[in-house]
Amino acid sequence: MSSHPVLIDGQWRPSVGQQTFQAVNPRTRELLPGVFPVSPWSEIEQAIHAAHRAFVATAGWPGERFARFLDQYAQLIDAHAAELVAAAHAETALPVEPRLAKAELPRTSNQLRQAASAAREGTWKRPILDTQANIRSAFGPLGPVVVFGPNNFPFAFNGIAGGDFAAAIAAGNPVIAKGHSSHPETTRLFAKLAQQAATETGLPPGFIQLLYRTSHADGARLVSHQHVAATGYTGARQTGLVLKQAADAAGKPIYLELSSINPIVLLPGAIVERGATLADEFTGSCLMGTGQFCTNPGLVVALSSPATLLLLEQVGQKFATAPVGTLLGEGVLKHLEAGVQTLRTAGAEVVAGGAPGGGQGFSYRNTLLKVSASRFLADRDRLQTEAFGNCSLWVLAESAEELVAVLDALEGNLTGSVYSATDGSDDALYARVEPVLRRRVGRLLNDKMPTGVAVSPAMNHGGPFPATGHPGFTAVGLPVSIQRFAMLQCYDAVRDSRLPPELRNANPTGQMWRLIDGQWSTANVGG
Amino acid sequence: MSSHPVLIDGQWRPSVGQQTFQAVNPRTRELLPGVFPVSPWSEIEQAIHAAHRAFVATAGWPGERFARFLDQYAQLIDAHAAELVAAAHAETALPVEPRLAKAELPRTSNQLRQAASAAREGTWKRPILDTQANIRSAFGPLGPVVVFGPNNFPFAFNGIAGGDFAAAIAAGNPVIAKGHSSHPETTRLFAKLAQQAATETGLPPGFIQLLYRTSHADGARLVSHQHVAATGYTGARQTGLVLKQAADAAGKPIYLELSSINPIVLLPGAIVERGATLADEFTGSCLMGTGQFCTNPGLVVALSSPATLLLLEQVGQKFATAPVGTLLGEGVLKHLEAGVQTLRTAGAEVVAGGAPGGGQGFSYRNTLLKVSASRFLADRDRLQTEAFGNCSLWVLAESAEELVAVLDALEGNLTGSVYSATDGSDDALYARVEPVLRRRVGRLLNDKMPTGVAVSPAMNHGGPFPATGHPGFTAVGLPVSIQRFAMLQCYDAVRDSRLPPELRNANPTGQMWRLIDGQWSTANVGG
Repeated sequence: MSSHPVLIDGQWRPSVGQQTFQAVNPRTRELLPGVFPVSPWSEIEQAIHAAHRAFVATAGWPGERFARFLDQYAQLIDAHAAELVAAAHAETALPVEPRLAKAELPRTSNQLRQAASAAREGTWKRPILDTQANIRSAFGPLGPVVVFGPNNFPFAFNGIAGGDFAAAIAAGNPVIAKGHSSHPETTRLFAKLAQQAATETGLPPGFIQLLYRTSHADGARLVSHQHVAATGYTGARQTGLVLKQAADAAGKPIYLELSSINPIVLLPGAIVERGATLADEFTGSCLMGTGQFCTNPGLVVALSSPATLLLLEQVGQKFATAPVGTLLGEGVLKHLEAGVQTLRTAGAEVVAGGAPGGGQGFSYRNTLLKVSASRFLADRDRLQTEAFGNCSLWVLAESAEELVAVLDALEGNLTGSVYSATDGSDDALYARVEPVLRRRVGRLLNDKMPTGVAVSPAMNHGGPFPATGHPGFTAVGLPVSIQRFAMLQCYDAVRDSRLPPELRNANPTGQMWRLIDGQWSTANVGG
Repeated sequence: MSSHPVLIDGQWRPSVGQQTFQAVNPRTRELLPGVFPVSPWSEIEQAIHAAHRAFVATAGWPGERFARFLDQYAQLIDAHAAELVAAAHAETALPVEPRLAKAELPRTSNQLRQAASAAREGTWKRPILDTQANIRSAFGPLGPVVVFGPNNFPFAFNGIAGGDFAAAIAAGNPVIAKGHSSHPETTRLFAKLAQQAATETGLPPGFIQLLYRTSHADGARLVSHQHVAATGYTGARQTGLVLKQAADAAGKPIYLELSSINPIVLLPGAIVERGATLADEFTGSCLMGTGQFCTNPGLVVALSSPATLLLLEQVGQKFATAPVGTLLGEGVLKHLEAGVQTLRTAGAEVVAGGAPGGGQGFSYRNTLLKVSASRFLADRDRLQTEAFGNCSLWVLAESAEELVAVLDALEGNLTGSVYSATDGSDDALYARVEPVLRRRVGRLLNDKMPTGVAVSPAMNHGGPFPATGHPGFTAVGLPVSIQRFAMLQCYDAVRDSRLPPELRNANPTGQMWRLIDGQWSTANVGG
């Protein structure tokens, strides 16, 4: 069986790799027809050199040229939505509606358009002009970026269509995409459209490229290659840490989104005030998409009380009766089984679920676990194991001190939510909880589940390690997410005609915000 | 001989360390009287825990409270200038005037005041408000920061007084300073003033602390400790990389300023137009401070021609006749000797100098080396060895292609300068050189030596690895340098009264710039 070609240097080339793989339909557990190559190092190296040439060829290009590609690509994606949705549904078992067709696909083309708008408008470069000293600086592209997409968002985080891709391109960097092995056909369709858009808008060959799979060792070589400037990785912690080690040793920025259990703190007044609503809200958030969100609420912390125990019982009933979704693949199922096993071994008790099955194909029963805070504190590492999927662990504290101690024992997370009463009765406890939670999470929520990640300029989809690799950056939210893939470029006494447009006296678009002698302004220098 | 105490948890405590060290007067090669301890792990750990407590105690503090400390400290430094200058002069042999008293000391207190102003004013937090979605984010402190100061700036980069210290404090982080072993008495004097200012302005014990020296292994443990959030390090590459490996493995940001040879490209028209001026300018920049600047021009690239050879000869004569300064210490001398040896082994020829001596105490003759571009390209790694001190290597290219190839072979550097004719005759070559140099340096200069690093908001004292650890950050230039020591904190649907002041509807100072729904503004939300 011949395998699909890879996209290298502007061409779809037969892979020279000997190994191949096929995706699996998670609902039927059957192999899907497409055969995809594992690229050997020689092929990866060709992609790196082509990306380097493309980077050199586009030096000094205005954002407008990258914006044109991003807009055209977004349009092609919308025009081929049905095909993309069908492929992704077959490969991931995620529901066609609303998830894939109505939510994730429009979000993906919308992200590309927002990135286009940011590239065109240029404020993301954060131009700073010191006209007295004649020193001026702005962010600029840094070179070829490798993007590893995860399994759980076949569109919005896809290596060749998602947020990291959009951000890296908007900055003016070539991208080498590494598709996730669980949805290669979806990724192939994206790459076809991306390549078409690249040709139509005049990007040079090698500006966007696709590899379906590499060995782990070659992945590490890739991210540390001298011509690779940075990497975006969203996925499992263990693989991410291997890549991080390689990139770190070579001095290359790598932005990781690893595991996160997204603690929810339920303060007592909120439980008394609106327990039933909380049960619905929590169950909906935790089981949505079969729990396969980076921001899935995998840990709940509450004071033990009759009201809390009642709420836990209600949630357990809802978990037991809610439909069980199909997981993204066998790997996710095995990982979930192992995670639940680790939690149980460490002392967590099953309230609902706790065993495979219950749904179509790869599935695991909606699982609710509980553990005492004292037990949690005694085995904090194991009891923070991410059981990625439709599973959550409730930690019951005997006192406010214990509750705060549990939060103080947490690793870095993407999000943390606090539910409190509207009548002020939880405010004193909130004030104790907030600072402890705040320093451990990228996004702090009030009375809200974390599973919706709005594409807002104010969003932070990031957080302290191990949630991500650096607490100062976000993977979602334009234009801020672009800065991950940029270098700070200062011009000292450089003649005006030699400056990039964003740093010349005249504002190049009339709309770009620039910090001129301490004042943010869209005006020209001197008027 | 009893050693000086260390500053831990708000107190000057006798060190429990068994090992001690003394600084050496570089001009006399004699031991200076002060005896300083090497802190063992138990002591380091006390400092870490005290810093953590101080961080918890200051959660939510407004910038004003850190600003008060920084201002008071700056005032105390100015008031004790004579004492500081005398100590630094004895320990480093840097000239009292203008260097220490007129340049570096005022710059240091000025940096602290700029940091105070930034902390007070708050724009560094880059507040972003999405009022529609009610998502708001801003940078905030991330926890205890360790600052390792270098040998070459006893004031402006001192671990307990310099730019990293000022930036980390301005963000609201406690600092554990690790003084450089070559100037412990200067560092001790600073710490006394810092502690006095901390007491007078009500910072909690442990917010600023000082250790004089640790073992390398303990340094690595320190930067990777769970209660240490980030590290700033300026110094030798090898030690920096050991710390980087430890911090990276623990997922902690570490900002390194390592080696840089700061290429100067002399285009042919400039040499013809103003060779004599260039000879003076280059010699002045390269020998200033005995060449011991991070931005010292250690590499010159030019097209070989009679004019270039004449210029090289003139520079050689200037190097031979200029006074030879005293180096900072025996370590710098040995490192410089080894560096010159490496360059010569790799094919560089001596034009001037090339041997120890010529000045008072630890000294090495002003050294000028030359090598052909073809030789450089054949042994690019060794020929980029940083010979820190009064030494520079000229690379002579036979063609424009070769000149560009040399630049294309460079590692990341802090700066790159291009000198070109004023009549436009170099413009075509400039256009070929610029993009190649641009992506390798943090600051690009025209017709200017890189040794002056203005404290400007537009400055970038940074650059691609191995010049620094991340190309997106600068170590000089307020308020931008503060962001290195901050985490992005997002608030999603958080009640207004619970938001930090910078994210509430009302602008807390009336002067803070905030990005509100896409517009930079100093106004309140809704008015």
